[in-house]
Amino acid sequence: MKALVYHGAGKKAWEEKPRPTMQQPTDAIVRMHKTTICGTDLHILKGDVPEVTPGRILGHEGIGIIEEIGAAVTTFQVGDRVLISCISSCGKCVSCRKGMYSHCELGGWLLGHLIDGTQAEYVRIPFADTSLYAIPDQVDEDAVVMLSDILPTGLECGVLNGQVQPGDAVVIVGAGPIGLAVLLTAQFYTPAVLIMVDVDDNRLHVARALGATHTINSQQQDAVQQVFALTENRGADVAVEAVGIPATFELCAAVIAPGGRIANVGVHGKSVALHLETLWSRNITITTRLVDTTTTPLLLKTVASGQVNAAQLITHHFALDDIEQAYDTFEHAAREKALKVILTRP
Amino acid sequence: MKALVYHGAGKKAWEEKPRPTMQQPTDAIVRMHKTTICGTDLHILKGDVPEVTPGRILGHEGIGIIEEIGAAVTTFQVGDRVLISCISSCGKCVSCRKGMYSHCELGGWLLGHLIDGTQAEYVRIPFADTSLYAIPDQVDEDAVVMLSDILPTGLECGVLNGQVQPGDAVVIVGAGPIGLAVLLTAQFYTPAVLIMVDVDDNRLHVARALGATHTINSQQQDAVQQVFALTENRGADVAVEAVGIPATFELCAAVIAPGGRIANVGVHGKSVALHLETLWSRNITITTRLVDTTTTPLLLKTVASGQVNAAQLITHHFALDDIEQAYDTFEHAAREKALKVILTRP
Repeated sequence: MKALVYHGAGKKAWEEKPRPTMQQPTDAIVRMHKTTICGTDLHILKGDVPEVTPGRILGHEGIGIIEEIGAAVTTFQVGDRVLISCISSCGKCVSCRKGMYSHCELGGWLLGHLIDGTQAEYVRIPFADTSLYAIPDQVDEDAVVMLSDILPTGLECGVLNGQVQPGDAVVIVGAGPIGLAVLLTAQFYTPAVLIMVDVDDNRLHVARALGATHTINSQQQDAVQQVFALTENRGADVAVEAVGIPATFELCAAVIAPGGRIANVGVHGKSVALHLETLWSRNITITTRLVDTTTTPLLLKTVASGQVNAAQLITHHFALDDIEQAYDTFEHAAREKALKVILTRP
Repeated sequence: MKALVYHGAGKKAWEEKPRPTMQQPTDAIVRMHKTTICGTDLHILKGDVPEVTPGRILGHEGIGIIEEIGAAVTTFQVGDRVLISCISSCGKCVSCRKGMYSHCELGGWLLGHLIDGTQAEYVRIPFADTSLYAIPDQVDEDAVVMLSDILPTGLECGVLNGQVQPGDAVVIVGAGPIGLAVLLTAQFYTPAVLIMVDVDDNRLHVARALGATHTINSQQQDAVQQVFALTENRGADVAVEAVGIPATFELCAAVIAPGGRIANVGVHGKSVALHLETLWSRNITITTRLVDTTTTPLLLKTVASGQVNAAQLITHHFALDDIEQAYDTFEHAAREKALKVILTRP
């Protein structure tokens, strides 16, 4: 089969690899139908994720058809159309039974990380019963691909951890696909003010179309001053960090109101300064989270009912065979005005 | 009347001051019966709290008898025996109606800070209806003094923010009076493991007497290694920072389990390094809080019923007139084996 293979920092190729085979009775082999590329794949390609070793097939998102299934799998059958979760979970360990699938003792983020992933013609999915989801009839398949990772990440790490409440003032820092997924899912909880901060005017334009009540270009305006001006000088009830650098985390801390919640979504490469000398008395909460994908069933219902239009995050379509061109587009997202790309295998 | 007056960094005197007078119809004048000294008073005396100006009477804790009362006060009468909360709250503003009295728009931490405090023969209490509490009959008055500040601080900022649950492994860093107040109130929620970390063997000895299941002297042992050894290599479900320096906060972050909660109680003077490069994916929660004293009624019931023995935190007694000697004892807490001191006016 063909697959997108990582060959060490800066190197990848769409090349021939052996088809995956069953290893455990809890496995399924899925024939990929659609996949996408994540910012995390770009991090891996830069060499920032050292546990990904050369030879690894990348990708942790997508949908497909079950081609082969282990004897222990009871929820699915060969031929079922399924959504692949970015998190594989055994369903049995202490973490899984708390709903913290991201820290599953046997699973977690495996696909395209510690085992071969979804940017391929076929993929092996461990713990199929608890790592795949049946796709309802008559939903937009492209939209469902957004539920492998970014929609649950936005909802769980941003909105639920930030405890967004009706009437709240919410600031989202970073209008990339993940920040926009926070923006879409925050609207489930009817905040009064939804401010998007970025440095790219095109992304801020998209944010307004997707429901931001205000946008701030932080290269052109003083973001702290603007947030206070938009919140009657109180600051934000919720600030969501969706970039992953110290400056954006510290912006969240600078705009938060007493009693507010800072929800970190970004993947960070270095430590940040936490200003406890001012924050110690301000009754704030800071959260971090690797997506657990506990909200995937809920999100499937909202996509099916039309309450969230996840396909709005998709800007480009390619054939799976053209994945190297898709990577080029995604790597130059600002120039290409790219958000999520969809790769389809006919 | 006599009062303990701050005269700028390093200077204080027990001296004659005018008796406070009514300023608002919501005020009460309280004849002090018992008060105490807080670590925060020592910070003020070092000049670390610049908003406290020379001439200020210190103190934000104590009990007394209402001597005079404003026309708008309906909950109390002259002669009532009352507990003074360290937080004054109007009860009407947005923050108060959320239960966040610490950020009351007209109140908050006023006593011994922005207005004259309780280390005096008389004190004026603003918003008496919502800043004083009736003392039940037949409770230990010394114990009740611990409810002005340290017991609600330990419970709210440490235990409730840390979401201590039955069966949890809890680490408390800092066995001073506040850390010990966390230790006492954590036991309301029946954690399985209660580890106290400090550098003073006497305080660790006290901690064991007050319910710690394990103690670690972090000058003699590797505290991180010990916590993992005591928690089946999982780390702590809850880590409470009760010192207020970068090293102790970073210790909390180093011992926290995935899904764990770090509750900051310490008053910090500088920023700390938050290692988001490892913590971003660990599903942790970090909280800060200035005590709201919302739990004062609950704590009065637990003291009255004997479920918490707050008087165990008291090591020294003085007459109010000997307050300068009490300060000397409290300033040399390690040498004197001092925790809380009680000052009584006959």
